[in-house]
Amino acid sequence: LTRIRVDQTRVEKAGYKHFMAKEIAEQPVVLGDAIKHYAGAGGIALPAGIDFAGLDRLTMVACGTAYYACLTAKYWFERLAGLNCEVDVASEFRYREPPLPANSVALFVSQSGETADTLAALRYAKEKVKKIVGVVNVPTSTIARESDVALPILAGIEVGVASTKAFTCQLTVLLLLALKAGLDRGQLTKAEVQGHLDDLAALPGLVNQALAREGEIAAIAAAVAEAQDVLFLGRGAMFPLALEGALKLKEISYIHAEGYASGELKHGPIALIDRAVPVVVLAPRDALFDKTVSNMQEVMARHGMVILLTDAAGAREAGEGTWKVLVLPKVADLLAPILYAIPAQLLAYHAAVAKGTDVDQPRNLAKSVTVE
Amino acid sequence: LTRIRVDQTRVEKAGYKHFMAKEIAEQPVVLGDAIKHYAGAGGIALPAGIDFAGLDRLTMVACGTAYYACLTAKYWFERLAGLNCEVDVASEFRYREPPLPANSVALFVSQSGETADTLAALRYAKEKVKKIVGVVNVPTSTIARESDVALPILAGIEVGVASTKAFTCQLTVLLLLALKAGLDRGQLTKAEVQGHLDDLAALPGLVNQALAREGEIAAIAAAVAEAQDVLFLGRGAMFPLALEGALKLKEISYIHAEGYASGELKHGPIALIDRAVPVVVLAPRDALFDKTVSNMQEVMARHGMVILLTDAAGAREAGEGTWKVLVLPKVADLLAPILYAIPAQLLAYHAAVAKGTDVDQPRNLAKSVTVE
Repeated sequence: LTRIRVDQTRVEKAGYKHFMAKEIAEQPVVLGDAIKHYAGAGGIALPAGIDFAGLDRLTMVACGTAYYACLTAKYWFERLAGLNCEVDVASEFRYREPPLPANSVALFVSQSGETADTLAALRYAKEKVKKIVGVVNVPTSTIARESDVALPILAGIEVGVASTKAFTCQLTVLLLLALKAGLDRGQLTKAEVQGHLDDLAALPGLVNQALAREGEIAAIAAAVAEAQDVLFLGRGAMFPLALEGALKLKEISYIHAEGYASGELKHGPIALIDRAVPVVVLAPRDALFDKTVSNMQEVMARHGMVILLTDAAGAREAGEGTWKVLVLPKVADLLAPILYAIPAQLLAYHAAVAKGTDVDQPRNLAKSVTVE
Repeated sequence: LTRIRVDQTRVEKAGYKHFMAKEIAEQPVVLGDAIKHYAGAGGIALPAGIDFAGLDRLTMVACGTAYYACLTAKYWFERLAGLNCEVDVASEFRYREPPLPANSVALFVSQSGETADTLAALRYAKEKVKKIVGVVNVPTSTIARESDVALPILAGIEVGVASTKAFTCQLTVLLLLALKAGLDRGQLTKAEVQGHLDDLAALPGLVNQALAREGEIAAIAAAVAEAQDVLFLGRGAMFPLALEGALKLKEISYIHAEGYASGELKHGPIALIDRAVPVVVLAPRDALFDKTVSNMQEVMARHGMVILLTDAAGAREAGEGTWKVLVLPKVADLLAPILYAIPAQLLAYHAAVAKGTDVDQPRNLAKSVTVE
């Protein structure tokens, strides 16, 4: 009989150096799972009991990364369903005691389903609104149990403190809800929804292609790791991703990164720009591209080091004079915030690896914030 | 005949080293002017044509500092009038083409009244809502002309690029609007409104007392000027002031400052905290004080350098172990964001002076952003 010592952590990491790397790499699979679960051949397959028709408002509440997922979803619910959306961080929402229209739905997003402020916000909204929807990763969690309808995001266990696959799975479930809202409210036809679902079915493949750029992203990250400060810029649904990209970098590399709406740059943050500040610009070639590029050129005129994340068409039109360009696959406008999350995560990950920080257990942070 | 060369700039600065210093110092006077103009012995004296009764929503749109004034006002409109508020930066609002309820008012705030994105947002909202209200400093501006009701903030000409007196005057006018909304909607009695107006009448005196702490603030600022990164924290209506305090410091000292809702600290930014990061905590002794202090203590446990801005009661309860404490006069809860703006402005000003930057003309910035 020979005893074999097994490094349990190594096994669970499946050969990856960190849980975070493994969880980033899992995204094509878990996104595929979530899409298959909530959208079949017959269209969107959400559980009964969610109806957006005739609603006055949707309120979304969360903390940290899940809050940025909600901010992104606001663009989708407005555009696809013409539904007024209020989004707030849970720690503010619960104490400002906001007016909640009776004819509204309140939606709470939390990976763990145990986030203390989000749970308190849910309890505040109960009895005041028509329906409470929980979007969680842990289906047995308190937020899931206390919701009228709980939607698991099916990301699988997430160990890395910096959320990655839970974020993109949250976005996917929120997008499916927005498509359902568009249908319920007569703003989208069944055929239009099916078109978006076809796009969504192709997303895991595109995510795989984005993951294949890891070597290139790691090289950019090695240069970013030298910086003291980094700005992230985006417009429209890419603005919340600028916030999330900055948060990710901050959390694990301890570089002071900050996200801004591109149009706000001139109202203050551009004062920070000099030769030492990398500026990550999230700009697929969409309807807002020219506006974002014009803000990017202001950065370049001040010798800021622009890292442009775009597609082939965007790189052709605006890549000249930037410090670095990363070319991502072309993706349907609606899905860009999900696809562009991948390079944002990899950039943070490789910057942290380059700096030698404890990627899976960054200083001062806990995975699930169950106290206020 | 003798020609005398006059330094026009010096004259206009009235002996101050910078326009910004002069404009900060003018606040007791201009706030007093605004208060007298919009609130007399008979109560609130706003122009006819603004009625908040029965409205479904108030939408507020602005850029930069004016946007933070709107974020603060959201707390007031909700608390005093139970009115749903949507606040957005103009560059996002105009392109996301948000649904606007017909039974709503849209309010646009701009110092110059010429901010390109804010004006475009106003034009988008026109015909869609019941009434367009403009809150501007320049009464002959385009935004004033294109509004159904224009409310000058009466701050006088503001020359310094970093807005100071325009911000507190914007807040004052917005607070008076929120009080009127409370009255219109039956959420406040005339007597309650009068109580708030009495508090407001005392505000210029309190601002004077805050200005008298300038020497103490300059000493703190000299230490802050050594920092690479600074965080500002606040809860409730002090959260937008945390954003504004950070913007001010960023604009003129080029220190990377960032504002956060205190409760969001644990969801990421706390990873930045180490012995080199000053954290400015905006915490009058109000109902949220204990929650903010608990977040502050997490910072201190990670050896963050806390600068606590509070009142005497707050300093007694929570001053121990902080790096610096600045004691401000006790002020009615509603007015704290206006009063605490003064030390935030002085902190930025003196940090910039200590660093030797061009305070009135910071690099890369223009006073009025009339392009996108």
